[in-house]
Amino acid sequence: MAINLDNFFKSISKNSKMSDFQDLDHIDGVSVSTTCANLYSKKRDDVVLFYFRNGANYASVYTQSKLVSENIKWNLKVNSKKIIALLINTRNANAFTGKDGYKGLKVLAETLSNELSQKQKDDQEKPKKIETDEILFACTGTIGESFPTNKIQKSIPDLIQKIKYTQNKYIWMKAAMGILTTDLRPKIAMEECYIGNKLVKIYGIAKGSGMIYPNMATTLGFVFTDATISSNILKQLLKHNIHKTFNAISCDGDTSTNDMVSLFATSEVANAKLKTFKDKKLKEFNSALFNVLLNLSKRVAADGEGASKFVTIKVKNCKSEEDAKKIAFSIANSPLVKTAIAGGDPNWGRIIMAIGKAKVNLNPNKLAIEIGKIKVIENGKISISYNEEEAANYMKEENINILVNLNLGKKEFISYTMDLTKKYIEINADYRT
Amino acid sequence: MAINLDNFFKSISKNSKMSDFQDLDHIDGVSVSTTCANLYSKKRDDVVLFYFRNGANYASVYTQSKLVSENIKWNLKVNSKKIIALLINTRNANAFTGKDGYKGLKVLAETLSNELSQKQKDDQEKPKKIETDEILFACTGTIGESFPTNKIQKSIPDLIQKIKYTQNKYIWMKAAMGILTTDLRPKIAMEECYIGNKLVKIYGIAKGSGMIYPNMATTLGFVFTDATISSNILKQLLKHNIHKTFNAISCDGDTSTNDMVSLFATSEVANAKLKTFKDKKLKEFNSALFNVLLNLSKRVAADGEGASKFVTIKVKNCKSEEDAKKIAFSIANSPLVKTAIAGGDPNWGRIIMAIGKAKVNLNPNKLAIEIGKIKVIENGKISISYNEEEAANYMKEENINILVNLNLGKKEFISYTMDLTKKYIEINADYRT
Repeated sequence: MAINLDNFFKSISKNSKMSDFQDLDHIDGVSVSTTCANLYSKKRDDVVLFYFRNGANYASVYTQSKLVSENIKWNLKVNSKKIIALLINTRNANAFTGKDGYKGLKVLAETLSNELSQKQKDDQEKPKKIETDEILFACTGTIGESFPTNKIQKSIPDLIQKIKYTQNKYIWMKAAMGILTTDLRPKIAMEECYIGNKLVKIYGIAKGSGMIYPNMATTLGFVFTDATISSNILKQLLKHNIHKTFNAISCDGDTSTNDMVSLFATSEVANAKLKTFKDKKLKEFNSALFNVLLNLSKRVAADGEGASKFVTIKVKNCKSEEDAKKIAFSIANSPLVKTAIAGGDPNWGRIIMAIGKAKVNLNPNKLAIEIGKIKVIENGKISISYNEEEAANYMKEENINILVNLNLGKKEFISYTMDLTKKYIEINADYRT
Repeated sequence: MAINLDNFFKSISKNSKMSDFQDLDHIDGVSVSTTCANLYSKKRDDVVLFYFRNGANYASVYTQSKLVSENIKWNLKVNSKKIIALLINTRNANAFTGKDGYKGLKVLAETLSNELSQKQKDDQEKPKKIETDEILFACTGTIGESFPTNKIQKSIPDLIQKIKYTQNKYIWMKAAMGILTTDLRPKIAMEECYIGNKLVKIYGIAKGSGMIYPNMATTLGFVFTDATISSNILKQLLKHNIHKTFNAISCDGDTSTNDMVSLFATSEVANAKLKTFKDKKLKEFNSALFNVLLNLSKRVAADGEGASKFVTIKVKNCKSEEDAKKIAFSIANSPLVKTAIAGGDPNWGRIIMAIGKAKVNLNPNKLAIEIGKIKVIENGKISISYNEEEAANYMKEENINILVNLNLGKKEFISYTMDLTKKYIEINADYRT
């Protein structure tokens, strides 16, 4: 019983301007190419290159883990204000690969720098030498296996040869598929909006599946815009919006060494100059960016390993957002709640358990819980209208909404997760075989 | 593939004085009786009474949840220095049952008080009236269903009629079975030791299975001694020993509304007077109590829902015990580590991931990891002796030991858990049906 992602994706996009896969198009200043570097035993695209021919301003957020992968270490050292290329590989996380893993990235960066410099010479009026400091890496896959530097290096000429400036719209789909690991579905989202009188695009792709938890776990997200926005403002935009999107999803409470969400702006659209992050002209862009990030993160959660249901947990009327978040994640990470949802069991006792263990001060007599539109708990007691059969019927649906109301304040937080199924165990008990 | 608990229980008891089930005997001042109150659809003992005819000093620790069951509320209000009876029921947690749930306990306490007072009149030279304030309750089972007061009340005469002062040794086994929910096996442990020149007994039973996490989750533990020890000293003994025993186990990171571990002393053995918890005469008792509590908690973890393997995680040479504990539980609670163990996969990358996400400051270059006696990581790198095949062979065993060495200090913590299997999902996706 796999979740019907087609229906789901339709349902989460129907109220937004987000378009379906087929609507993604060329975005000025971004070239994408993908190829197979034979990192898996079967043929599939497993390396993806994003090339910004005139450079891109950028901002990134990374995992909060105390043991980070070599590519995250590399990215944290990048000093350049503009990025020319982002290389993503799957199958190998390049984590706990030590000096060799880091050296491997250096080799790849040098190869990319040489070959891209050559490409600029061939193609451009004003070619420039590409520096290794203008290259970012994203890796995802198994931790602790030696990094396949040679295989990836060999794939670089093919990646560069495939770069085209006006691209087939399906390239976004290919890229989104090329970065997957145990994900079942590519994750793509887009919005268009105005900055002043200029229409700009925001395109994004993501991958997730296991180890998805606040601070993003083996989640990768890459968002691109043709707007002219400084790196400084991009940083503020990303920081502002990541909190309620990628940092609001959880699949299993595990966090990876490789998380990374980046935002690139190619400045190909000459929109009005923006002085600060709070510039009124950015209002529409800010909310469109939020939509793209939220859309991608929901797709990540919905496609969490083994997921058969998508679960939205809203905790409202709390004294602080922190309290709301603690409770929302306590529910989202509870194996007992998640297995009950998998079994279609409206076992609200487990929701109570998860609220209680979050250690947030609350007044049990004010507590209210709804499952879907069904009132379960009101004023700390079972609602007189509660009907178990009706609730059990609701639990058969694919999208489950849980609402917890503390009735103590005005703050809220929404987390997104999936159910916990036998399929999750199957996938993870033999991930490497 | 269920864990072979017989072998396991033998292995955890072979190095201690702990005896097997058959060795448990009569403990002076404790009478036990069990019966079927028809709380389940099939016939089984589901209520258990412990009766202390001359009263017992006692100490209890309870769940840290912010939403506690009605019986925990009741117990927290008990003021009496001596306890006459402890009534345990399964199937229903009496949590989120509101005023009716609490009233139900009052009804049961009154019935018990009347019937036990009558029994004292019939049996004893110096009968005394039993107060409701001398009665404790333990409940375990589903949260949020109305408390079956009537059914339990009806079972009380039978429970009291069955009380005998010298009991069949199998009564301990019956009691341990009568408190189970989804547990597969009863959990019993015992030690004998000296206080001064007097031999005293320590007997214990426990139940657990799901929702097992620090602060004990639907874990119930009841330990009895015939020693003469004040309630004050019992409190200190329990507090001192719970930390590395019941609070060191985790099955799924979920915590219940009903956790409770209690220690009762009947004072039937006239051992030397003890002035403080630090009295030298208590040294042997203290360590015997630790053994009983550890033994019970290991049995709870080993019998965790769906367990096929028992996992011990030792984190040593940390700057603080708190750091060690954070990492130990980060590993013990990681679904990705636990599914890898279920699959017999020595996926140490996931251990790295779990160490990293614990957010403890560490020096990656000093990190060492062993699985069993196999060195996996030394000085932050894969050990030159590491052999994946050997590790995969080790992972086939039923008892898995993971050692993490930060090489930063002298503190350590050991946590106990089990693997995460499809069986866990099966049990929890339809617990109530």
